[in-house]
Amino acid sequence: MKDIQNQTDNRKVSINKVGVKDVKYPIIVLDKKNKAQHTIGTINMYVNLPHNFRGTHMSRFIEILNKYHNRLHIDTMSDILREMETRLTAEEAHMEMTFPYFIEKEAPVSHIKSLMEYECTYTGILKGAAEEYIIKVKVPVTSVCPCSKEISEYGAHNQRSHVTIEVKMKNFIWFEDLIEIAENAASSPVYAILKRVDEKFVTEKGYDNPMFVEDIVRNIAVEMNKLESIEWYHIESENFESIHNHSAYACIDSRDE
Amino acid sequence: MKDIQNQTDNRKVSINKVGVKDVKYPIIVLDKKNKAQHTIGTINMYVNLPHNFRGTHMSRFIEILNKYHNRLHIDTMSDILREMETRLTAEEAHMEMTFPYFIEKEAPVSHIKSLMEYECTYTGILKGAAEEYIIKVKVPVTSVCPCSKEISEYGAHNQRSHVTIEVKMKNFIWFEDLIEIAENAASSPVYAILKRVDEKFVTEKGYDNPMFVEDIVRNIAVEMNKLESIEWYHIESENFESIHNHSAYACIDSRDE
Amino acid sequence: MKDIQNQTDNRKVSINKVGVKDVKYPIIVLDKKNKAQHTIGTINMYVNLPHNFRGTHMSRFIEILNKYHNRLHIDTMSDILREMETRLTAEEAHMEMTFPYFIEKEAPVSHIKSLMEYECTYTGILKGAAEEYIIKVKVPVTSVCPCSKEISEYGAHNQRSHVTIEVKMKNFIWFEDLIEIAENAASSPVYAILKRVDEKFVTEKGYDNPMFVEDIVRNIAVEMNKLESIEWYHIESENFESIHNHSAYACIDSRDE
Amino acid sequence: MKDIQNQTDNRKVSINKVGVKDVKYPIIVLDKKNKAQHTIGTINMYVNLPHNFRGTHMSRFIEILNKYHNRLHIDTMSDILREMETRLTAEEAHMEMTFPYFIEKEAPVSHIKSLMEYECTYTGILKGAAEEYIIKVKVPVTSVCPCSKEISEYGAHNQRSHVTIEVKMKNFIWFEDLIEIAENAASSPVYAILKRVDEKFVTEKGYDNPMFVEDIVRNIAVEMNKLESIEWYHIESENFESIHNHSAYACIDSRDE
Repeated sequence: MKDIQNQTDNRKVSINKVGVKDVKYPIIVLDKKNKAQHTIGTINMYVNLPHNFRGTHMSRFIEILNKYHNRLHIDTMSDILREMETRLTAEEAHMEMTFPYFIEKEAPVSHIKSLMEYECTYTGILKGAAEEYIIKVKVPVTSVCPCSKEISEYGAHNQRSHVTIEVKMKNFIWFEDLIEIAENAASSPVYAILKRVDEKFVTEKGYDNPMFVEDIVRNIAVEMNKLESIEWYHIESENFESIHNHSAYACIDSRDE
Repeated sequence: MKDIQNQTDNRKVSINKVGVKDVKYPIIVLDKKNKAQHTIGTINMYVNLPHNFRGTHMSRFIEILNKYHNRLHIDTMSDILREMETRLTAEEAHMEMTFPYFIEKEAPVSHIKSLMEYECTYTGILKGAAEEYIIKVKVPVTSVCPCSKEISEYGAHNQRSHVTIEVKMKNFIWFEDLIEIAENAASSPVYAILKRVDEKFVTEKGYDNPMFVEDIVRNIAVEMNKLESIEWYHIESENFESIHNHSAYACIDSRDE
Repeated sequence: MKDIQNQTDNRKVSINKVGVKDVKYPIIVLDKKNKAQHTIGTINMYVNLPHNFRGTHMSRFIEILNKYHNRLHIDTMSDILREMETRLTAEEAHMEMTFPYFIEKEAPVSHIKSLMEYECTYTGILKGAAEEYIIKVKVPVTSVCPCSKEISEYGAHNQRSHVTIEVKMKNFIWFEDLIEIAENAASSPVYAILKRVDEKFVTEKGYDNPMFVEDIVRNIAVEMNKLESIEWYHIESENFESIHNHSAYACIDSRDE
Repeated sequence: MKDIQNQTDNRKVSINKVGVKDVKYPIIVLDKKNKAQHTIGTINMYVNLPHNFRGTHMSRFIEILNKYHNRLHIDTMSDILREMETRLTAEEAHMEMTFPYFIEKEAPVSHIKSLMEYECTYTGILKGAAEEYIIKVKVPVTSVCPCSKEISEYGAHNQRSHVTIEVKMKNFIWFEDLIEIAENAASSPVYAILKRVDEKFVTEKGYDNPMFVEDIVRNIAVEMNKLESIEWYHIESENFESIHNHSAYACIDSRDE
């Protein structure tokens, strides 16, 4: 059979990323408390393609995933990137895994336990000898509006917000540590289960602790600035306003001047 | 060219619905205040297919849409359904249009005006001589939790909720009327714009008017039961809980005994 | 603390379903080949609410999930439904779990193995003494257009299609069996990995085996009609047409006369 | 009423973007053929916030939208950005509008006309005296796999692909011109309506013109490199493979070395 992908290309255009996108695959990720957690990843794998080759070999990406079946976690990502580079004759390799990640959490008063789900992403990038690792967490929290509290006789509008923290790591960081920073920066964490004593607690805590979308991203930036294991960070908060049909949004990126 | 679609089928299986799905098209809908409103529909058009025909003629659905270009609204749906029935040699025709619909709304104190968007659906079904028309609105509202208010010294968790009302009409009903019922059934409507005096008003109104997800659907059912122009109704509310990462949900369907 | 939920309600409106929606939770499901499979469920749990009670107790749904942690699978659903009925003083209980489900599949010529993901749903409904179980699978397949093949000198447009089969079971049915029926009904199954010999095989197989969206649902209906363990079925196919920007769609429902 | 937003902030963290997100609003956009087109925008509006202010004034963003009601199009974006800068006392203003955009298109043989929908985005950024304008189009096309065609006796797998072109403009560029480049770079454009003579034409044209995902982005890059009105471009293609359940993906970004 003729190998079309290996044909010479004359357009003189190199491709930054080419590969497979949205591959679903069972993966195992490191868990700070339980060592390992089984979850389901949505995976993108890309390499660069020099200008003189017509195509990459898509099936090899999936072959590499298969080879690492049951060992597909953060510890093996460097090996996977090296293997992508070698088998696809590339100088750059790029892998992203997004997955639901569960942490057991105690309700604040009853101490009843439940599982909270966070959407996490782990990205590895290989460029020649250099490797980069980027992690991202999306953390649901409660935000209580300081303005609404201040101007109203009673009550204050509040809502679920999604906080996103993305960091390029110099040293390893646990998802758990970023999640804790996000939850502490908001009016209150959210929980999968709250008994009535807990509901009273989080309602009053939120009201005592009102936060604008601007406050949430700033509180996180203050904590990020203390961490030495981070090269850059990107922080977002999106508040699904309970009094509007649109979101309030803020972001801070340490790479912007 | 051979007409594959008109081949005889021997599987003896008739098809309930066959046609085109998720066609985007500019449409005009009736507007209670301004007579007509330009919007963008996502359109499904189906007919039944008797057991002895192999296929329907997909391009004719779009030809019918094209013919009614600029006249594609609720008033012409009956004509469109009849034309589907005739041109596709069917006994049943089914058309659904979902679209963003805008209503100008005044803030409660400042009376500043803004446009609120509601997702509306209009469905027409033709079965022989009979025609059925079903409308659906999705209305964002605020819900304040009565339990949280009762048990807490101050504050109460609240959130955006999506209320859905779907009705089979006996007589014509305006989207505006269903939207008003939904907004009155909740702790407060939501708005596209609120000045500080308005924010104070809706915060206090919501706190004075706490509603469980159960209360919202029941308040609507009470109003629906008074309407004579309705054959059946289906009511849902989904509250995007500000203290949890999941929703509270309730539904009432008048067809369930 | 005052129990607001237990207050008497005077609106005389009973609620069909009330509970929690979109709870993410790790679950274990039965696997025909490997006995058990770890995956992540998106779970809805509802009960009915008689007209005289104001509210249900949302936290108890999650407490029940927690109790069955690590035993949350199809075998325990009956126990869970009974526990919902008892703890929430309801006459009806309803649970839906949707999850990615993986099956190892061999490429047709190279026999290289890979994991294919299918979206599956398992629903249990308890009404007094009666229990109902409904399963649903969403199966991606290839469809090659018979008309395009017939009228063209060479080639034929083809695309990914999503086939959905939902059945009310009289007796237990494996997801695997429904998936096999769906894949056999289309022009070709899809695979996570195909080497060049396999790609040649599935290309030619698809071209030899063209199927309209109507053919796919009918082929499945013919197989469903043979099964004795099914009370009713609903079959859909949506073809993401490669020559259009909308879908071709067909459905057959055995409950429609 | 106390103005909480104007309070002094001591965290010494400036915010890159803060504002409103996902506001739905009717807009009018420039249309190359018909001068103007009514559509529905999803709008984000952000400003920067210096470190010493606690909060921005969210309602003013919507007031600005209201003021430009019926004049909310590309021509007025510069005025809107200046007004955001002034009214929110900011040095930077950022506005993004994403909307469905319709173009009348003729089928290749029958010349029957229909409306094709494209998702377009228009972004304006103001930084002091400088203004930047970025446009983005998402174009559905057909891709036929060259490898599948080469190795198979007959047939070739093909599928719908989404091509995205994003450019920073030096001079004004029509969405129509980018869409044409995208459609010419693929195996075939897609259409809202095709009669049988057209279906034969596009099937054969696609087969005569097979394109890898790599070919599509390269063909576009070659055209982009000729345009003088562009400062940078980002090109993506995602092919929803008809033989797999994942996508093939490629991107080229002129800013990467």
